[in-house]
Amino acid sequence: VRDLAGEAAARDAADPLAGWRERFHLPEPELVYLDGNSLGPLPEQTREAVRRAVDEEWGRGLVRSWDSWLHLGVEIGDVLGPLIGAEPGEVALSDQTSVDLFKLADAALGAAGGADIVTEADNFPSDRYVLAGVAARHGGRLRLVPPAPSAEDVAAVLDGGVGLVSLSLVSYRSGAFLDAAGIGEVARRHGAFTLWDLSHAAGAVPCRLRDAGADLAIGCTYKYLNGGPGAPAFLWVRRDLQDRLLQPISGWFGHRDMFGFHDTYEPAPDIRRFLTGTPPILSMVAAGEGIRLVAEAGIGAIRAKSVALTSWFIELAHEYLDGLGFTVATPEEPDRRGSHVALRHEAAWPVTQALRSLGVIVDYRTPELVRFGFSPLVNRYADVAVAIERTARVVEERRHEAFPADRGEVT
Amino acid sequence: VRDLAGEAAARDAADPLAGWRERFHLPEPELVYLDGNSLGPLPEQTREAVRRAVDEEWGRGLVRSWDSWLHLGVEIGDVLGPLIGAEPGEVALSDQTSVDLFKLADAALGAAGGADIVTEADNFPSDRYVLAGVAARHGGRLRLVPPAPSAEDVAAVLDGGVGLVSLSLVSYRSGAFLDAAGIGEVARRHGAFTLWDLSHAAGAVPCRLRDAGADLAIGCTYKYLNGGPGAPAFLWVRRDLQDRLLQPISGWFGHRDMFGFHDTYEPAPDIRRFLTGTPPILSMVAAGEGIRLVAEAGIGAIRAKSVALTSWFIELAHEYLDGLGFTVATPEEPDRRGSHVALRHEAAWPVTQALRSLGVIVDYRTPELVRFGFSPLVNRYADVAVAIERTARVVEERRHEAFPADRGEVT
Repeated sequence: VRDLAGEAAARDAADPLAGWRERFHLPEPELVYLDGNSLGPLPEQTREAVRRAVDEEWGRGLVRSWDSWLHLGVEIGDVLGPLIGAEPGEVALSDQTSVDLFKLADAALGAAGGADIVTEADNFPSDRYVLAGVAARHGGRLRLVPPAPSAEDVAAVLDGGVGLVSLSLVSYRSGAFLDAAGIGEVARRHGAFTLWDLSHAAGAVPCRLRDAGADLAIGCTYKYLNGGPGAPAFLWVRRDLQDRLLQPISGWFGHRDMFGFHDTYEPAPDIRRFLTGTPPILSMVAAGEGIRLVAEAGIGAIRAKSVALTSWFIELAHEYLDGLGFTVATPEEPDRRGSHVALRHEAAWPVTQALRSLGVIVDYRTPELVRFGFSPLVNRYADVAVAIERTARVVEERRHEAFPADRGEVT
Repeated sequence: VRDLAGEAAARDAADPLAGWRERFHLPEPELVYLDGNSLGPLPEQTREAVRRAVDEEWGRGLVRSWDSWLHLGVEIGDVLGPLIGAEPGEVALSDQTSVDLFKLADAALGAAGGADIVTEADNFPSDRYVLAGVAARHGGRLRLVPPAPSAEDVAAVLDGGVGLVSLSLVSYRSGAFLDAAGIGEVARRHGAFTLWDLSHAAGAVPCRLRDAGADLAIGCTYKYLNGGPGAPAFLWVRRDLQDRLLQPISGWFGHRDMFGFHDTYEPAPDIRRFLTGTPPILSMVAAGEGIRLVAEAGIGAIRAKSVALTSWFIELAHEYLDGLGFTVATPEEPDRRGSHVALRHEAAWPVTQALRSLGVIVDYRTPELVRFGFSPLVNRYADVAVAIERTARVVEERRHEAFPADRGEVT
């Protein structure tokens, strides 16, 4: 019998990022939190930053604090930029992910030849819903490609009727990490823009947007960027596209001279034209701290540990779980996956609940995936070992049978 | 010479709402804060609520706290409802004001016969920008009515080509409080929806939306509702309209079964269909506290004190400021105005800066308005007296001449 705890301890002792875990507020040391790709944990520095924003900036500064809040979305965007391969002035935090997707997809179709949008059949539902709506408004429709599409899969559905290819760089289900450069090239060849959802990528994998020849991107900041529940989303528009594209929600934060109170809307000449209204400052401040923390650690070191964590998890899953009805639903080549691993099991829903009851917080995705998310600044190799052992125990001891067989309709 | 300080002290001693000021965190007792209609001050209870949301809910509960966060926007909406004359299930907090305006205006034009939108020439610029954009997308345009329009002014531009009348119930500039019932009636007669921006009304005046026969409303929560900088906006859709209208940003929070991860978007049958994406929880929690505080005080008592404060301010403005180049730009009949008073002065910008330097925080609005906002739970009659005396002193002593004559282009 392997000594998994011992192996994990040796790996943790050699981990150059081990010290970063202390930068987070994790009040239950025994909890194995593998859902940082749903909600990243609270950075210690965020507690003080939010307190200062409430007590000092709002409480004491009152309306005068808008001098420092006004450009926060663009300032934090520039901290985030290097993590996703953007240049200064190309990123801003604004609104929520679905709203930013709507704005940029609509802007792209407004400038493109075609009105159809290519997306993945398994793309995050909110993305598919929003993209279908945008396409319909322009007289187009969705064209679906299969999960984890290659550049060839995308090329197969491309023609002049397509104005936009919008995919998640890392799949929220399988964790598949797509070939952005290859897909970008075939899209460009057909005159379609590319718009990447980086929600499961930013802060976990190097996105290299500019190197990949991408056009647009959006993403959330509350997963691997640890920005807090519902923290504002980010949007990226390559600089040379900024004055060619117009987003539909022409609010004052996108105006060239927002306090000039003009008769008509004149879009700002830069990334600000993609902003809309007054942003939620408390949540914005929290997002800034989470992003700064990740930027300080560096995406190279984060990615290296992510690959090591997920590789070990997959190795152990084969050894311990293959015989218990689990299959690995995530690409096994390291450079084809992000930072989570999905295991398929016919009892995925009750297994997820049983794992949570044993202190292993994982997530369920319909119809039969258990998702293990590894946040490299937080998770230890010990978490991998414990997760594998408890997952095996749940099924061996039929502990999942104490939970309802399906989730029902949760609204 | 009148003893303004003595008169104010007598009024404050008789004020039934005097005790509410202590419920706010006002660290400079000498500061006269008359900009609560730009950013309401920090309620004491909000400090603890945000701390709890950060440390306990996010920090300790992690992703599990979504059980309590998920419906926060609708739950807080029901606390706000009675303040604006709405029924339960008709209000939700979501997104920012400009985004909610976009969603509801677009939904209205999608269901209306006409594509033009009637709004006020002096409506808040972001509203005009957004409404112009929405109208254009539907093949229509804005039809402008003069400031502080009557029902007759609106009727004069109405015909079958108009799908929506969208106005601010209280003007951000003059403070004029419009006749919602009269305007609603003429709009209905022409088959147009009404969409009210309550940003300068909610929490300060009784809005009585249902009594007025209104259809739709939006507004911000960071003014008289004291929800904090950029706190999420609210939207109201009268119940019988909810399943007739579709908003354009079809995100998962608006889906009938948001965690079912379906192939296509099926809008929820209720107010949730007007939601979009994951809301900013920290800012949402702060909004909830501010709204609860106002609801507890009661809109009747708030309105009574608001009328008393603004009436006394106008009386004193005539006595002390008429001879110094100021004119009252706000309707003098109490039931025709909201809770702020705008004074016109040719040096409004430097006067605003000089007043701020003397500890009277007021706001400037282009081209020549100084705006004095009275938040009845916070402001004292003493604030009225001090504001009048210092405004007179600024001009008498030419203190404003030490400041730049105009604001320049601030972006």
